[in-house]
Amino acid sequence: MSMRVVDSIPAIRALVSEARKTGSTIGLVPTMGALHAGHRRLVEVARGECGFVVVTIFVNPTQFNQASDFEKYPRTLEADLAVCAEAGADVIFAPSAHEMYPGPQYTTVEVSTLGEHLCGKFRPGHFRGVATVVSKLLNIAQADRAYFGEKDAQQLAIIQRMVADLDMAVRIVPVPTVREADGLAMSSRNVRLSAEERAAAPAVYRALQMVAVELTAGRTNVEEAKQAALAMLAAVRPQPKVEYLDIVDMVTLAPLAHVDREALIAIAVWMGDVRLIDNLRYAAARA
Amino acid sequence: MSMRVVDSIPAIRALVSEARKTGSTIGLVPTMGALHAGHRRLVEVARGECGFVVVTIFVNPTQFNQASDFEKYPRTLEADLAVCAEAGADVIFAPSAHEMYPGPQYTTVEVSTLGEHLCGKFRPGHFRGVATVVSKLLNIAQADRAYFGEKDAQQLAIIQRMVADLDMAVRIVPVPTVREADGLAMSSRNVRLSAEERAAAPAVYRALQMVAVELTAGRTNVEEAKQAALAMLAAVRPQPKVEYLDIVDMVTLAPLAHVDREALIAIAVWMGDVRLIDNLRYAAARA
Repeated sequence: MSMRVVDSIPAIRALVSEARKTGSTIGLVPTMGALHAGHRRLVEVARGECGFVVVTIFVNPTQFNQASDFEKYPRTLEADLAVCAEAGADVIFAPSAHEMYPGPQYTTVEVSTLGEHLCGKFRPGHFRGVATVVSKLLNIAQADRAYFGEKDAQQLAIIQRMVADLDMAVRIVPVPTVREADGLAMSSRNVRLSAEERAAAPAVYRALQMVAVELTAGRTNVEEAKQAALAMLAAVRPQPKVEYLDIVDMVTLAPLAHVDREALIAIAVWMGDVRLIDNLRYAAARA
Repeated sequence: MSMRVVDSIPAIRALVSEARKTGSTIGLVPTMGALHAGHRRLVEVARGECGFVVVTIFVNPTQFNQASDFEKYPRTLEADLAVCAEAGADVIFAPSAHEMYPGPQYTTVEVSTLGEHLCGKFRPGHFRGVATVVSKLLNIAQADRAYFGEKDAQQLAIIQRMVADLDMAVRIVPVPTVREADGLAMSSRNVRLSAEERAAAPAVYRALQMVAVELTAGRTNVEEAKQAALAMLAAVRPQPKVEYLDIVDMVTLAPLAHVDREALIAIAVWMGDVRLIDNLRYAAARA
């Protein structure tokens, strides 16, 4: 059966309900489109685990802090559909903003603590928008499993916490970050980098690796562990403007001063007017 | 099959899943126990519409503003089970607080605007607690229909809005308020009234009826429409302390100054240390 594309909530519900009747496990891959190899991996993993794979393509206005970022967000529906078809999606749900928000949206889902650190400090309301729209998509698709990339580590942690706290009947499946050959994490925003910025961008992942090396070498004080990476980034041209480089608790995402356990090293930088994020999980070698 | 009583989330999920496999519609009646004829009606209506009826009994700590009100809330499990069995429930889910909140609950569901008026003004955080726990219960029971009494009109409006805004796959069924012969709305808190307070309590409903009479007579200015009812309440002994007597929009629950459409007349009073609420829907005779 060839891939279907629907834009209404009743239509996607009907298709999912039909698939469920045949006993299929329902897999959901929520995206904002502008699909790249990272998304493709999400769909492939879902395809391998589920009988029926739904990909949603919806650029959610409530999670953007600036109208300009929302407007500039790349929209490439034709190419996206090709990626989804190749990766084996059964149906694409690509609703309009009006379909998702037909009237005033009074209800919000908020995950405290986890949403306050890292990107949350710089993007007020962003994760409330994310948690709310993901709740809606999970409820619409009635998914058994939903797939999220580890590149958006804070988003993943927040969604996992939300699902646990609200007893949602879905399993969240994390999928490892897909990178370019030079280490740059795949992102829909990468296409907005100039040639020079693109050439410099792998420094973002290198910085994370340098912090991990310091930690592994026993430099467990966070400020000390960050120094070499920050010095490296300061020497890169065009220079990435570091928004944060933090080492945080895996569960609460609160910054650590001293790394004595598994932790997440996370970074956000601006390259010109493009914001890039990346992260690396660090497993402490010694207690 | 006789009624089952379970206290764990996996146990209730297994029973619901089994019932669903036989094609049964799942009905949920969320309660805090201390069941009276109003709850019994909820269960009976659910029984008439659903193949499998789940009643939850859980005194939710996060929706109480005062520890004393939480502690004083009547707990009558044995009698509750008898009511449920007679009314035809299939299973009772009566979890502990630890089962529902095993760790810190970081996630909350909030319905803005609707939660800010009426009781929301006097019970900060109450409806956030209600919306969050009802989300959890709906997700745990995977209900097709859930039954709520019109007596808690603001709670009902908030839950209906939450379900619509979050695209939850459940239908909320409102059930009319059940009253004592003298008009007092059934409430678990009524048993805490002294004999004198109980004798005076029907004045609460009478006040609502008096407002409706004034509105019907064409006195559409809210302050004027309330005057006779407030004067009547002021003369009652022991005297009910009026927390609010408002006439509000059916959808947003925002107070109206002039009643030119369908509206909700709602009241909260204190009789001693017992808080009573009630409401009456008013359908404007003329546009």
